[in-house]
Amino acid sequence: MADVLRDLLDGRWAEVRRGSLELLGKLEPAGELGREEYRAWVLEQMRALAAGGHPLIGFPAEHGGRDDVGGSVVAFEVLGFGDLSLMVKAGVQWGLFGGAVQALGTREHHELLPAIMSMDLPGCFAMTESGHGSDVQNLRTTATYDVEAQEFVVHTPDASARKDYIGSAARDGRMAVVFAQLVTGGTSHGVHAVLVPIRDSSGAPMPGVRIEDCGPKAGLNGVDNGRLWFDGVRVPRSALLDRYGSVSADGEYSSPIEGAGRRFFTMLGTLVRGRISVAGGAGSATKKALTIAIRYGSTRRQFTRPDSGDEVVVLDYLAHQRRLLPALATSYALHFAQEELVSALHDVADDRAQRELESRAAGVKAVSTWHATATIQACREACGGAGYLGENLVAGLKADTDVFTTFEGDNTVLLQLVAKGLLTSYRDHVGDLDPWGMARFVADQVVDVVIERTAARAIIDRLVSGSSDALLDRGWQVRQFEDRERHVLEGLARRLRRATPENAFDVFNTAQDHVLHAARAHVDRVVLEAFVAAVDRCPDPEVSALLDTVCDLYALSTIEADRAWFLEHGRLTAARSKSLTQAVNQLCAGLRPHARRLVDVFGVPEGWLAAPIIG
Amino acid sequence: MADVLRDLLDGRWAEVRRGSLELLGKLEPAGELGREEYRAWVLEQMRALAAGGHPLIGFPAEHGGRDDVGGSVVAFEVLGFGDLSLMVKAGVQWGLFGGAVQALGTREHHELLPAIMSMDLPGCFAMTESGHGSDVQNLRTTATYDVEAQEFVVHTPDASARKDYIGSAARDGRMAVVFAQLVTGGTSHGVHAVLVPIRDSSGAPMPGVRIEDCGPKAGLNGVDNGRLWFDGVRVPRSALLDRYGSVSADGEYSSPIEGAGRRFFTMLGTLVRGRISVAGGAGSATKKALTIAIRYGSTRRQFTRPDSGDEVVVLDYLAHQRRLLPALATSYALHFAQEELVSALHDVADDRAQRELESRAAGVKAVSTWHATATIQACREACGGAGYLGENLVAGLKADTDVFTTFEGDNTVLLQLVAKGLLTSYRDHVGDLDPWGMARFVADQVVDVVIERTAARAIIDRLVSGSSDALLDRGWQVRQFEDRERHVLEGLARRLRRATPENAFDVFNTAQDHVLHAARAHVDRVVLEAFVAAVDRCPDPEVSALLDTVCDLYALSTIEADRAWFLEHGRLTAARSKSLTQAVNQLCAGLRPHARRLVDVFGVPEGWLAAPIIG
Repeated sequence: MADVLRDLLDGRWAEVRRGSLELLGKLEPAGELGREEYRAWVLEQMRALAAGGHPLIGFPAEHGGRDDVGGSVVAFEVLGFGDLSLMVKAGVQWGLFGGAVQALGTREHHELLPAIMSMDLPGCFAMTESGHGSDVQNLRTTATYDVEAQEFVVHTPDASARKDYIGSAARDGRMAVVFAQLVTGGTSHGVHAVLVPIRDSSGAPMPGVRIEDCGPKAGLNGVDNGRLWFDGVRVPRSALLDRYGSVSADGEYSSPIEGAGRRFFTMLGTLVRGRISVAGGAGSATKKALTIAIRYGSTRRQFTRPDSGDEVVVLDYLAHQRRLLPALATSYALHFAQEELVSALHDVADDRAQRELESRAAGVKAVSTWHATATIQACREACGGAGYLGENLVAGLKADTDVFTTFEGDNTVLLQLVAKGLLTSYRDHVGDLDPWGMARFVADQVVDVVIERTAARAIIDRLVSGSSDALLDRGWQVRQFEDRERHVLEGLARRLRRATPENAFDVFNTAQDHVLHAARAHVDRVVLEAFVAAVDRCPDPEVSALLDTVCDLYALSTIEADRAWFLEHGRLTAARSKSLTQAVNQLCAGLRPHARRLVDVFGVPEGWLAAPIIG
Repeated sequence: MADVLRDLLDGRWAEVRRGSLELLGKLEPAGELGREEYRAWVLEQMRALAAGGHPLIGFPAEHGGRDDVGGSVVAFEVLGFGDLSLMVKAGVQWGLFGGAVQALGTREHHELLPAIMSMDLPGCFAMTESGHGSDVQNLRTTATYDVEAQEFVVHTPDASARKDYIGSAARDGRMAVVFAQLVTGGTSHGVHAVLVPIRDSSGAPMPGVRIEDCGPKAGLNGVDNGRLWFDGVRVPRSALLDRYGSVSADGEYSSPIEGAGRRFFTMLGTLVRGRISVAGGAGSATKKALTIAIRYGSTRRQFTRPDSGDEVVVLDYLAHQRRLLPALATSYALHFAQEELVSALHDVADDRAQRELESRAAGVKAVSTWHATATIQACREACGGAGYLGENLVAGLKADTDVFTTFEGDNTVLLQLVAKGLLTSYRDHVGDLDPWGMARFVADQVVDVVIERTAARAIIDRLVSGSSDALLDRGWQVRQFEDRERHVLEGLARRLRRATPENAFDVFNTAQDHVLHAARAHVDRVVLEAFVAAVDRCPDPEVSALLDTVCDLYALSTIEADRAWFLEHGRLTAARSKSLTQAVNQLCAGLRPHARRLVDVFGVPEGWLAAPIIG
C-alpha cells in the first residue's frame, strides 16, 4: 500500500525525485556552526551537489545539461528535506543566477553555463533594491551606454537604490546579474539585466563595487546575503543579457518586444521557475515538520485516562488532531497542485498558457508558503517545549522558511497578481505591476467571469453533474469551491467597475480584502481539482479510499475555515455549517490511525530526521 | 494628549513602571554573540538589574525587599522591551526560583532570599520532566525520607523522569528547587519541593547530580536551559520547602491541607505570578514589534499612485492596515486586562478569589501569548525581507517569544483549566489536572452558567441596559461577547453532562474544540470589560474618543473573527455580518492617522529600538 501511495506522490518526475533523494541521503546535516563556518559548509555541499549532477537537470543539453525544466524544480523540492540554506543557495546559483543567464542571455552568455553549473563561477541575482522590492519595475540602478567606450556604466544613484538582500553577495559571488534601467542616448528602455563581475579571483571586490554583509538573519544563515553598490562600474557591451533587448555598437536599442512594460513582464516571466521552486521547497519543509510532529504525537503521552489508567497518546486528543491533520491533508492537496504546476511549466506552449502559468505560480507560491508558516508553527507548538530545541529540527524549519512568504514575491502582492489575471482572463500583460491596474482595466471592459476547470476536466464534470448535497460528496465540495470563486470574482468586478483614472487607487484599495479573497478562492479551487485528479488516477482501491478521506478533510476544512462567507451568502444554513464542523472532527478521528503512514510515505531521508524526540 | 494616554497605560504601578524603564534604559543590547558569550552577557546584566534594585520589588520587606507583588510583575513586563533572554533569566531567578523559596518555604529558607536577590545564589526551578510537562502532578522524581540519616534522598528513577528544560541549569545554577514525589515510610504524599545544591562553588556538579545542556534553541539562547538527573542525592531534612507539608525528624508527615491533590494545587497556586508575568512579557514584546512595524509602515513606500505620481506609504493600503491595526487594538485591550490581572494578584483576598485569579491568569496568558505569536509574525511579514534581518529586531522577537505559548503552561491545557473553572464556578480544586475531570464534575452537578462581570460592573450594566443595536454601540458589543460566552458554556455543560466514569474521556474529547471555544469566549469578554473600564476612567475627552475607536476595533474585529459562530447561532444576519467587515475596514482607516502615536506611547526605550529600518 505504501508503495502505491509513494508512486502516486512521486508522480511524473519519479525518477528525478528518487535520484535526488539518493543524492541528498549522501549528505549529512551541518550540526551547530557559527555563521561563517555554516556558510563555508554550505559552499562545500554546493560542490557536492554539483559533483552529484544536481544542477545538470535543468540546463540545456548543449552545455552538458539534461534539458529537464520540470525535473529541475522537483530536484530543488527534494533539497527542502535537507538543509534549507543549501536549498536556497542552490536556488540562487542555479535557479536565479544560472536561470537568468540562460533565459535572458544569448549564445555568448551561455558559454558561462558550465562554470555556473560546476560552481566555478558562483554568482548573484541582483534585482531587489532597498527602496524597491515588490515594485521591481521602478528599480533605480542604471546601466548607461557609453558609445565612445562601447561600455555600459552601471551605477547606484542613491542609497535606496543599493542592491539589497542579494544571495551569495556577502561572501562567495564573483559575478552578478544586475537588473538596471537601461539608458542609451539619454533614453531609458526599462529594466534589463547586465552581467557585472563583483569580485576578482582573490575574492576582493572589483573596483567601484562596494559590498556589505546583511548580517545575521532569522534563519537561512548559511546563505551569505549582502548589499551591493556600483559607482560607475564599466562593463563591455556584451555584458548585456540581450535576448529581449540589445544595444548596437553605436548605441541603437532594439528589441523583439514592443513596449517597455510588456518587455519587462516577458523577462520576468522567464523567471517564473523560481516561484514554483519556492512553493515546492516550502512543501518539503512542511512535510518534514509534519513528519516530526506526527511521529512525536503518536508516541508522546500526557494525562492518565480515568477508565484504563493508561496515559493518553497526545495525537488521540481532538485538539491535537485538529492542529495537525487538516494541515496534513492540505499538504497532500498542495503536493498534487505543485505537480500540476511543474507539468504546466514544463509543457508551456503559448503566450496565454505562459501568463496563466505565471498567475498560477504566484497563487500556489502564496498559498504554499503561508501554509508552511502556519503548519510549521502548529508543529512547533504540538511538540511542546521539545519543539523549541534546535536538536528537534522544527525550530530550524520555522526560522528558515519564514521568509518564503516574502521572497520571490511578497504573498500579498502575488495574490493581487492572481486576481488581476482572473479579471483580465490573462489578456496580455495589463498595465504595470501596480495592483490598481486591474481596477482601471475592469472599468474599461466587460468582464465575464468564467471558471475554467484546470485539471481532470472530465472527472470534475462527472463529479459535479451527478452530485448530491451530502457533505462528503466530492461533487458538492467542488461546487462550493467553484461557486465561491465565481461569486467573489463577480462581486469584485462589479466593485472595480466604478474605477476612473482619478479614483482607481481608492476604488482598488477599499476592495483590497475582496481582491485577496478572490485570489484565495481561485487558488483553493485549483488545488482541490489537482487533488481530485490525483485520487482519480490512483490504481489501488484501498489507497484510493484513504486518499478520498484525506481529500474530504482538505475540502471540508477549507470550506469550514471560510464558512462565514458561505453563511453570509446563503450557501450554508446554520445547521449545515455546524454539521460541517462535526464532519471535520470525524474525518480527523478517521484519519488518526493512518497519520503516521501518511507522513512516512513523504519519504524524508532518515538521516535528515535525526530529532531525539522521534529517535 | 500623549501624556494623558501614557498615564492611563502606566496605570496603578506607574512609578514602578517608570523606574524600571529608566533602569532598562541604562542597559544596552547585546549585539551578535555566540551562545556562551551571550549567556555570560545575560549573567552580567542580571547583576546590573540586581544592583539597580529590580529584584527587590517583589520580595518581603524583612529581607530588604519592597513587598510589592504587583509591582514585581510590572517590572518584569518592562524587561520585555529589552533583551528577552534577560527577561526570562530574571523570571527564572527571582520569579520561579526565588518565588518558590518564598512561597513554599518557611523562615529558615527565607534566609536565602538576600543571596537570591543579589544573584550570589543563582538557582533553578526544576519542575518539568521529559515525560511530564503539563501533567506535573505525575512527576516521577522522588524525594524519599531516610529516617536514620534524617535526610531526603532525591532520585531520578528513569530516563523520562530527568528534569528537562530547566533555566539556569546548564551553566549558572548552584541550587535547584526540585519538585518530587515526597515519600515517607513507604507512603507517597504527592509532589513537594526540595532544595538541592546542584553545583559547588567551583561550578562543578555536586556528587550524584548529572547535568546536560539543552543546546541551541529557536530563541532565548542567552538562557542556559539544561537537564538534571539525581542519583540518590542526599539533602538534609530542612531542605524540604515545608510551608504546605513537613516531615518530622522521625518521618511523620503533616500538612495544613488535607488531600494530596488539593495540597498540590495550593502549592501551584502560589506560583501563579509566573503565568501573569509571561502574559505581561509577551505583551511588551508584541508592543515592540508593533512599534517597529507601524513606524516602518508609516514611511516605507511602494508602487506609484496613478493620480498623483507619488509612491504609496504601505500603511495606507487596506491590507496592511488589516494586518497591523486590529492587532494593535488587541494589544491595547490586553494591556488593560493585564493591569487588572496584576491588581487581582496583588489584592487577592480569599480562596475563591485565588482560584478565579488562577483561572484568569491561565486564560490571559494563553490569549496574550498566542496574540504575540500571531502579531509578531504579522509584523515580520509587514516589514518584508527587512523584517527577516537580525538588525531589525523583529526576527529576534519572534524567535524569543515563540515558546511563550508553551512554557508556564501549554496554552491548550491552560484554556481547558479556564473552562473547568467556569463550569465548576471555581468550587475548590476539582479533581486533577487532567482535562476530563470537568466532564466528570459536570455530570454530577447542576451547572448554572452565570456571567459574572469582572471589571467596572456598573459601567457595563449601564452600557448594556441603554444599548441600541448599532455595531458601534459598546453595549451591543458587550452583549455579543456575553451572549456568546453564555451560550457556548451552556451548550458545553449539556454535552459534558452525558459523562459517566467510564466514558468521561471520550465525552470530553469529542467536545474538546467546544471546551477551547468556551474558554476563549470567556477570556475575550473579560478582556473587553477591562478595556471598557479603562476608556471610562480616561480623564481627557480627546484621548477617550481615540481609545473608544481602538476599543471598537478590538470588539468588532474579535466578533468578526468568530462571525461564523454568530451567524450559525442566529446572532448576526448575513447582511449585518457583511456590514461588520465594512465597519472593521472603516475603523482601520479611521485609526490609520493615529497609528504612529498609538505605538509611540507604549514607550519602548529608543535604545532598544535601534533597527535600521526605522532609523
